[in-house]
Amino acid sequence: MVFAMHAGFAFLEVGTVRHKNQVNALVKIITDFAVSCIAYFFVGYWIAYDVKFFSSAQELTDNNGYDLVKFFFLMIFAAAIPAIISGGIAERAKFYTFLIGSAMIVAVVYPFFEGIVWNGNYGFQAWLQQTTGASFHDFAGSVVVHVMGGWLALVGVYFLGLRKGREKDNKLIAFAPSNIPFLALGTWILCIGWFGFNVMSAQSMDGISGLVAMNSLMAMVGGILAALWFGKNDPGFIHNGPLAGLVAVCAGSDVMHPIGSLFVGLIAGWIFVKLFTVMQQTKTIDDVLGVWPLHGVCGAWGGIALAYLVLNH
Amino acid sequence: MVFAMHAGFAFLEVGTVRHKNQVNALVKIITDFAVSCIAYFFVGYWIAYDVKFFSSAQELTDNNGYDLVKFFFLMIFAAAIPAIISGGIAERAKFYTFLIGSAMIVAVVYPFFEGIVWNGNYGFQAWLQQTTGASFHDFAGSVVVHVMGGWLALVGVYFLGLRKGREKDNKLIAFAPSNIPFLALGTWILCIGWFGFNVMSAQSMDGISGLVAMNSLMAMVGGILAALWFGKNDPGFIHNGPLAGLVAVCAGSDVMHPIGSLFVGLIAGWIFVKLFTVMQQTKTIDDVLGVWPLHGVCGAWGGIALAYLVLNH
Amino acid sequence: MVFAMHAGFAFLEVGTVRHKNQVNALVKIITDFAVSCIAYFFVGYWIAYDVKFFSSAQELTDNNGYDLVKFFFLMIFAAAIPAIISGGIAERAKFYTFLIGSAMIVAVVYPFFEGIVWNGNYGFQAWLQQTTGASFHDFAGSVVVHVMGGWLALVGVYFLGLRKGREKDNKLIAFAPSNIPFLALGTWILCIGWFGFNVMSAQSMDGISGLVAMNSLMAMVGGILAALWFGKNDPGFIHNGPLAGLVAVCAGSDVMHPIGSLFVGLIAGWIFVKLFTVMQQTKTIDDVLGVWPLHGVCGAWGGIALAYLVLNH
Repeated sequence: MVFAMHAGFAFLEVGTVRHKNQVNALVKIITDFAVSCIAYFFVGYWIAYDVKFFSSAQELTDNNGYDLVKFFFLMIFAAAIPAIISGGIAERAKFYTFLIGSAMIVAVVYPFFEGIVWNGNYGFQAWLQQTTGASFHDFAGSVVVHVMGGWLALVGVYFLGLRKGREKDNKLIAFAPSNIPFLALGTWILCIGWFGFNVMSAQSMDGISGLVAMNSLMAMVGGILAALWFGKNDPGFIHNGPLAGLVAVCAGSDVMHPIGSLFVGLIAGWIFVKLFTVMQQTKTIDDVLGVWPLHGVCGAWGGIALAYLVLNH
Repeated sequence: MVFAMHAGFAFLEVGTVRHKNQVNALVKIITDFAVSCIAYFFVGYWIAYDVKFFSSAQELTDNNGYDLVKFFFLMIFAAAIPAIISGGIAERAKFYTFLIGSAMIVAVVYPFFEGIVWNGNYGFQAWLQQTTGASFHDFAGSVVVHVMGGWLALVGVYFLGLRKGREKDNKLIAFAPSNIPFLALGTWILCIGWFGFNVMSAQSMDGISGLVAMNSLMAMVGGILAALWFGKNDPGFIHNGPLAGLVAVCAGSDVMHPIGSLFVGLIAGWIFVKLFTVMQQTKTIDDVLGVWPLHGVCGAWGGIALAYLVLNH
Repeated sequence: MVFAMHAGFAFLEVGTVRHKNQVNALVKIITDFAVSCIAYFFVGYWIAYDVKFFSSAQELTDNNGYDLVKFFFLMIFAAAIPAIISGGIAERAKFYTFLIGSAMIVAVVYPFFEGIVWNGNYGFQAWLQQTTGASFHDFAGSVVVHVMGGWLALVGVYFLGLRKGREKDNKLIAFAPSNIPFLALGTWILCIGWFGFNVMSAQSMDGISGLVAMNSLMAMVGGILAALWFGKNDPGFIHNGPLAGLVAVCAGSDVMHPIGSLFVGLIAGWIFVKLFTVMQQTKTIDDVLGVWPLHGVCGAWGGIALAYLVLNH
């Protein structure tokens, strides 16, 4: 189930890029996944949680292999970062340069922040708890995963510049998605995987999986409806809307109310459509899948909505 | 997993409709899903089970969020109704008219019958129990979901008439499916989701998931073989056969014997092939995906087979 | 989830064969699945485990339906054999001849060996235990399923000869895969299904699911990286690499160390790329999906690696 998300990333990108780049996108995503796993297994997890895997197979399965299952979940998060960035800089990055960059991010950059938020490293969470009365809560990575991926992508997108052919006679041309069915397949697979993932990560806690499922659903629904309305039936928007909702609701899917999640999703869908439309008209940012508005901004919106909720209760 | 069924409906329709309507089909299914969720969440569930979701998030997770999980399952059933109808009237219905119709059905029409069968509303089940000695048993919705979807679709199909271009010089032309791989993908996804769904809904009961899985499997197998034989290797029939079997076996998958399910599936596959062939040659019914024979008649056949079984034991 | 593997086989083959054979491949895989189920249900399972399904539905669900769930898992293995062979002899075998062959293999040939290894039939395992000090261990079928499928395919491939058009003016022409996105979809679906399958079969034992998941993941990663390196970025190789790793690690995924699995996967990926390249240049073997190197040789390599490990501990 967990791979489903990466399959989803792959097909979302395949459907969105131009026809000639479909095969590249597929090769890139699967290779990147492999490199990320290696980087996180040997270095990243050690940095974030101070755990290494050099004990014997016997020892690893003690505690019902719970440590391994935990690693598994966290690795899927980690490997999502390059997959997210990949969508933003699609059709331009060099294959091996991007692979090396991915490895660095998953091995060092991401685990550094991850450890701070989810493992209490460097005492940041303790300080926050003392100062504001609440630690920083991020159930399924709205901020830790998505905001980081989105903003890193923005940096890459900014330096790589426009794709060849997007500017003609001083006018900007939009490249239409090459294959809507594959794009839609990516969305469906991502939603299915995301759900399974959220619900499973909830089960390991204490029976709040029902709430997590409902919140994810309502945010998705909100995203679809907002994208339908503000995106004027555009099939690309409608299939990115549910993802915007899911990104935004990740942080709080274990504490929010379903109706609140519906509103979080509606606003996330609206943010995505508006920012992507603006972005299409600038000459400095050429973000192929709209990664920055989707992950960078919708994730931040989810984090802010949740922080407001937490501090006021 | 639960969304898998809707992804399956989407790709089944994408593969079956003409190329120019593929994108419409995708947009329609995902939007419809969102609207159905809203309708069932705010109105439908309340009508069927007298439960509202306006209590706090804390309260909703009491009882391990079991109520939310139950809602989840039932909502997937409810949202399936418009997805079923959509396949029948594909390529003709107006987008917003169909959305409004879907919302009405999921909010009011379906929950009214659902409540009668599954929640004992209005005392119908009690009266049946008293009169015939057995209440009406429908484990996974052969009748409640599929028959209703199928017959509602027939009404729509009848009023919408033939698609443009199907009649030429007083002769009927059949439109071939535009993309068999997508059609097949839809079937596989649907089967996977259906299985997960049936098995999961069984687990919440009392360890009969093994029987449910076996019965679903054997009905599917029966449907494939009948479609192979009677449909003369036609790829469209072969990929609809397993669905015919699954529709028919839904009602009794928790009590039937696997060999019985094989026969239920064989007959369902035969029904689908024969009725669809007849339907293709009439000028009044133009049911794109064969929704009426598939859901309306195969579902009814499953319900009758089961009722016979129950009343004779 | 369990069907996911067959959906994966189907799309892997659809993407690899020439465009004109895509529909045939889809019809073949789903029909074959149905026939295999029937053959294994009525004959094969009886031969391997001496269990028949003619008791009442009530009795079948005793023991929480555990026997049915067990049958289910084993049937998925059994049905995989024809699906594996199918990929090797794709584009040449006659439909009904192949169906009959599949039925024979699943009903008789495979269960004969399966019973010997997994049910201790004919005292072979007892004899091995006595002679070498260890019985033959094959957790998820590297040898029982994959090696058998791979070598049976080789026999078929050898007798069927080259596909028409592959030899021209005494030179061999390679047919490129017709649709890389479908091929990739097949790989992703297979990996997802395989994982779910391995992990679920582990859970029924005793909490080693975490180790199984990790080992499957690391072998997959190894296969991808080796295919990337030795296959020089060829998209076909990169999407078969993870499968090579998974085939090889099946046997020992419940006892190996994750880092060992990484090496098993790396070597399996290398084996696949090298043997497939050699095979493409012979005039006697025309193995469309590379089934023999993938399942026959990588599976054997996994069995050997494991036997070495077991005998030295």
